[in-house]
Amino acid sequence: MATGLPAKLKPAARVAGQRQDVWSIVNEAAAASPKQPIVNMGQGFFGYNPPPFIIAAAKSALDRVDCNQYSPTKGRPRLKKAIADAYSPFWGRKLDPETEVTITTGANEGMLSAFMAFIEPGDEVVIFEPFFDQYISNIEMAGGKIVYVPMHPPQDGATKTSSAAEWTVDFNELEKAITPTTKMIVLNTPHNPVGKVYSKEELQRIGDLCVKHEVIILSDEVYDRLYYVPFTRIATLSPEIEQLTITVGSAGKNFYATGWRVGWLVGPAHLIQYVSAAHTRICYSSVSPLQEACAVGFEQAESEGFWDETVKEMKGKMTRFNEVWDELGLPYSDPEGGYFVMVNTKKIKLPENYPFPPHVASRPRDFKLAWFLIHEVGVAAIPPTEFYTEPNAWLAEDYMRFAVCKEDEVLETAKERLRGLKKYIQE
Amino acid sequence: MATGLPAKLKPAARVAGQRQDVWSIVNEAAAASPKQPIVNMGQGFFGYNPPPFIIAAAKSALDRVDCNQYSPTKGRPRLKKAIADAYSPFWGRKLDPETEVTITTGANEGMLSAFMAFIEPGDEVVIFEPFFDQYISNIEMAGGKIVYVPMHPPQDGATKTSSAAEWTVDFNELEKAITPTTKMIVLNTPHNPVGKVYSKEELQRIGDLCVKHEVIILSDEVYDRLYYVPFTRIATLSPEIEQLTITVGSAGKNFYATGWRVGWLVGPAHLIQYVSAAHTRICYSSVSPLQEACAVGFEQAESEGFWDETVKEMKGKMTRFNEVWDELGLPYSDPEGGYFVMVNTKKIKLPENYPFPPHVASRPRDFKLAWFLIHEVGVAAIPPTEFYTEPNAWLAEDYMRFAVCKEDEVLETAKERLRGLKKYIQE
Repeated sequence: MATGLPAKLKPAARVAGQRQDVWSIVNEAAAASPKQPIVNMGQGFFGYNPPPFIIAAAKSALDRVDCNQYSPTKGRPRLKKAIADAYSPFWGRKLDPETEVTITTGANEGMLSAFMAFIEPGDEVVIFEPFFDQYISNIEMAGGKIVYVPMHPPQDGATKTSSAAEWTVDFNELEKAITPTTKMIVLNTPHNPVGKVYSKEELQRIGDLCVKHEVIILSDEVYDRLYYVPFTRIATLSPEIEQLTITVGSAGKNFYATGWRVGWLVGPAHLIQYVSAAHTRICYSSVSPLQEACAVGFEQAESEGFWDETVKEMKGKMTRFNEVWDELGLPYSDPEGGYFVMVNTKKIKLPENYPFPPHVASRPRDFKLAWFLIHEVGVAAIPPTEFYTEPNAWLAEDYMRFAVCKEDEVLETAKERLRGLKKYIQE
Repeated sequence: MATGLPAKLKPAARVAGQRQDVWSIVNEAAAASPKQPIVNMGQGFFGYNPPPFIIAAAKSALDRVDCNQYSPTKGRPRLKKAIADAYSPFWGRKLDPETEVTITTGANEGMLSAFMAFIEPGDEVVIFEPFFDQYISNIEMAGGKIVYVPMHPPQDGATKTSSAAEWTVDFNELEKAITPTTKMIVLNTPHNPVGKVYSKEELQRIGDLCVKHEVIILSDEVYDRLYYVPFTRIATLSPEIEQLTITVGSAGKNFYATGWRVGWLVGPAHLIQYVSAAHTRICYSSVSPLQEACAVGFEQAESEGFWDETVKEMKGKMTRFNEVWDELGLPYSDPEGGYFVMVNTKKIKLPENYPFPPHVASRPRDFKLAWFLIHEVGVAAIPPTEFYTEPNAWLAEDYMRFAVCKEDEVLETAKERLRGLKKYIQE
């Protein structure tokens, strides 16, 4: 704060003095790089538009008075019904759009609403590392105490490409993390950044623990239409688990529209009602014309063949991009879902005395490598230790996260540039 | 909560067991009324579309990849620049779009972001009654303690129509409400529901008090383009006041698009930076294609003659609608700004033994009158005691709030129906 300002203007602790986040470090580095234009495989936004039938629906909604004015706080009835209809087959029963679905301002604000709905100051929330960074501030905003459980990377990850399934949870560690004050656990499957799709067996064990200890499960399934192995939704494993589970979805991820800010939560009425109440107090209601477009998205996705196409296309991009790692001999975790790939960079030797700026030099190796990639290769990626607490950051300091949800020609340009890494690779 | 559910699933106090809000009471009453379709002059949504040049801009944005993906958390550069350019003339200096403007998910989430940025548990926030109801839950979410200062209605409000300016602040009461732990004060001008535009002299006195006591001013000016008397923005009164002031704006109100969820805050960098930080943690970013459309809105509003037209049109609607009160001999507070009119209904005698449902019978007289209007006349309006604490609710129990931001033919239908009140009016 500038000198001379009244002391009483000081900010609340929840926003004061946080270190620079990875997104702004990477964006600023990209802007300052000599390799313009940078190929941005950092943030997980799409390099292409939502499908035409959804764009057309959005434009059509903009012509309707009711679609430009406030929606009900819990969401537009048409969208809630479309989501209930789309998810009912997975649940094996008819979901009630009025009580079991609520619309939020993106999945992010949806998760904040869930934390605000259930977390009292001091309540504990278990999350896995690596985590999506917004979980932390969202839980802390509600006064929650976070308990971290690491996912363990494959032991031979530095030398051998293997399935993202090889990132594993130690169930002894998980059970030890659950205490009498554990209120919630946050799951993420398909997982960002790891690309793991939790197996039915893993989810059953997690669900059983939560039933035993009466822990609410917040299952972040925003990549739920992008899976390359069988995908299980934990809420569907048993009525006892379902009763404890809130499932999070995202139009941004489902329909290639991360800037639309439409998300939803599905769960039993006794949980969803409080999520809706919190959402009303946070954002009041969510964006109307794009809710309407998403309703059309769900209504027509099946008949348009969109769900099959989205899997096929993204899997194709993943395969296309990862060829470059095979060429270079750099191992990666082959994703089971989502659009991120974690590449192990241990074999890349950074030049000695490379001039990293202090805010990068003070962070783990992956931050240095990200800086180096941006400045020497012209490709932006995300250092995953941002998604770890300090004691566990070493687990991921050799990895780098690349987002492949980009046009094929962008992926080819990235590959061409990344071939320039060859001279830094030591076997 | 249903029986048989684990005790640990109980919600946080911040969302548990709140009484039914006015919006759902009115909406449910409207749905159950025999007078279908109800003329809805309750909630302040527009009965018509944003102007064509802004709709066209939104459609055009939907064709652009970058307009469908994440925007920067602080808002799209084009919109921040357009807002800085639009507001600079009022400030009498060039506003910096990078540091003095931040975009939020509607004014509502913008205000929550401001509270989250500055309120620590126990900090006091002064608000005037009547208040916009979301202020309360937003301040409480941040842990703030609310101190209420009533606006006093005109003493002859039950017998005589007078300017909304006659609702006054007792400055002794205001100064007494400010303590060493007062962190913020919330202003609202043009005022909802009163229709008052605070005079320059009133704002100067409020501003001076805030400078003296180092209190942050959060000035909710979402109706800032709808004023029928000279309008002063408190931030512009002096550099000392500006340094303490965050001004809140709304595309929903400015551009007839309450469902777009685009708002902004303007203020000094040393305040705005923390609002942005809080917003990032709440919603991450705001809706991209509609931000782009709002940028075009600001860029072209002047040349399209939109700002002049919006005042002229709304003033015309206000005059058109209020004719019915003159006919009926019911006094009202003639609005100086905004699109709400507060009508004094003291002369309306409700039939004895009218069958009000319990959740209405237990509330002040204005709730009963709202129910009666919906069921007997077929017009929905908002009982303003919802915007008061219980000790002060009597101040407004004879008033009713009507929103005139509707098509002229709707206003005429409403008038025709309201003429049916004649037989209940006693001089």
